[in-house]
Amino acid sequence: MKTYIGVDLGGTNVRVAKVDESGNVLQVLKEETEAKQGPEHILSKIERMIASLDDYENCEGIGLGIPGPIDTQAGKIIVSNNLPDLIGYPIADRFKKHFNKPVFMDNDVNVAGLGEALQGAGKDNRIVYYLTVSTGVGGALVVEEKLIAGANGHAGEVGNMILDPHRPARAGLNTGATESEMSGPALTRKASEALQRPIAHAGELFELAAQGDEKAKELVENFKDDFARLLSGIAFVVDPDIFVIGGGVMKSSEHFFEDVVERYRSLVFPGMRNVKFAKAQLDEPGLIGAAMLPMAYIK
Amino acid sequence: MKTYIGVDLGGTNVRVAKVDESGNVLQVLKEETEAKQGPEHILSKIERMIASLDDYENCEGIGLGIPGPIDTQAGKIIVSNNLPDLIGYPIADRFKKHFNKPVFMDNDVNVAGLGEALQGAGKDNRIVYYLTVSTGVGGALVVEEKLIAGANGHAGEVGNMILDPHRPARAGLNTGATESEMSGPALTRKASEALQRPIAHAGELFELAAQGDEKAKELVENFKDDFARLLSGIAFVVDPDIFVIGGGVMKSSEHFFEDVVERYRSLVFPGMRNVKFAKAQLDEPGLIGAAMLPMAYIK
Repeated sequence: MKTYIGVDLGGTNVRVAKVDESGNVLQVLKEETEAKQGPEHILSKIERMIASLDDYENCEGIGLGIPGPIDTQAGKIIVSNNLPDLIGYPIADRFKKHFNKPVFMDNDVNVAGLGEALQGAGKDNRIVYYLTVSTGVGGALVVEEKLIAGANGHAGEVGNMILDPHRPARAGLNTGATESEMSGPALTRKASEALQRPIAHAGELFELAAQGDEKAKELVENFKDDFARLLSGIAFVVDPDIFVIGGGVMKSSEHFFEDVVERYRSLVFPGMRNVKFAKAQLDEPGLIGAAMLPMAYIK
Repeated sequence: MKTYIGVDLGGTNVRVAKVDESGNVLQVLKEETEAKQGPEHILSKIERMIASLDDYENCEGIGLGIPGPIDTQAGKIIVSNNLPDLIGYPIADRFKKHFNKPVFMDNDVNVAGLGEALQGAGKDNRIVYYLTVSTGVGGALVVEEKLIAGANGHAGEVGNMILDPHRPARAGLNTGATESEMSGPALTRKASEALQRPIAHAGELFELAAQGDEKAKELVENFKDDFARLLSGIAFVVDPDIFVIGGGVMKSSEHFFEDVVERYRSLVFPGMRNVKFAKAQLDEPGLIGAAMLPMAYIK
């Protein structure tokens, strides 16, 4: 069975895994990124980690998932808050030369989407749209097992889509942007404002609504409308076979998801109502998805 | 040079053309569709028309562009107001057997988008988004010279995307749907209402605004905002290299397009501001695009 190397490079930790073509994680290594020590320190650390995987020489290729917009063609980071020293560094080229293997890079959301499309809830579907609703809101489009990352690595930045132009602009995003309205922190903020006391996280809002709190119920109803409108907007552009939804907010999905799907169906054309919906199912979508990058592109 | 057969099948007329791989239309035949006479009549007419093209036996394949959602995998019409008798008929299979050539079908907007992507304003770009603003509003996504038609042939139905959920629902579309707000008839309707006299077409609205009419100017400003918001929503999903814009409303583009592009840039992330914008440039995008369908898929 073929094996691939996946690298999940974040601002705090870097993890390196060996994954087989069925998505089984065979081995994982984890170290601190130590981002402040500069590109040479970080990248040579990753090289050592890869070289310490069992039988790494026989892996087919290397995939990296990194937060923020990635130039997938050039194999470079475009924008990054957590890894500023690596912006523009030819990371993919360096690893290609060092290991003499194919190397692919994409952002963490795209990589998770690829993992879910190939090995998770989206498996065996031709067009998969992965959406994560968490601290941020982001998406990934996978068509015939390949990511469509966009001309500038910005495909899937649906967090900045305008859900309602009459709502305020927040945190550098557009007026009524998806992420400002639907993310976990957005729900927590709205709930704290409406209830005039601190709400710990989005899960608490959904619990309060379930217990009958009127203000919480109203916020949850608005959230369902927003969610359905976002999904319909994406569907009118790409018309997927399946939406796979992940992210922390989905931990409370029993409180909203069925209604979201029903409202989505009322917003689309009859021919689009049979789209499937699934919760993300991989425990390690970022790590598995990173390893799937070379699998998706070497064929 | 390789040649392809394009069929532009509408409710009123059917046109059949021989097109070379550079997009030159070498020969065109046109007849009335006579849609009411049923599938056998229409399809055998098209077969005769194709067979009367010079040297049709040596063409590489056949492509059909037809209005409305198409099941591109099965080669059937899903929904059609103008050709109801052909819904569900295995058109592509019939022509495949009859001519022993590859046959591909897609909707008229996708086909026009493919034509513009391969031979028109989008040529040599990796990700092309084609948008037509005319009687309707529709789009087409072309990635690496292939159409992404969607799971149900509904990709690009951006006319039903919600631009502003606080505006009314019209004609079976969503509240504040793009097509109800931005199409030629929508602009004409809004102008007639605002000015309280009949306005003939969208071009007249733009002329009145250019002459300083305050109500017309306000409508045109709203139109520019709507247009920019639509483009940003599409870009957050697919991040194209270029937007190619066609359709009748673009005849007045000197009155709005520069501002639309500027407003679009204010709505997207810095890395997306270098997207190119171009007016559609083919005289016969539907016919050329239909002929390009087999070119896009036989390789």
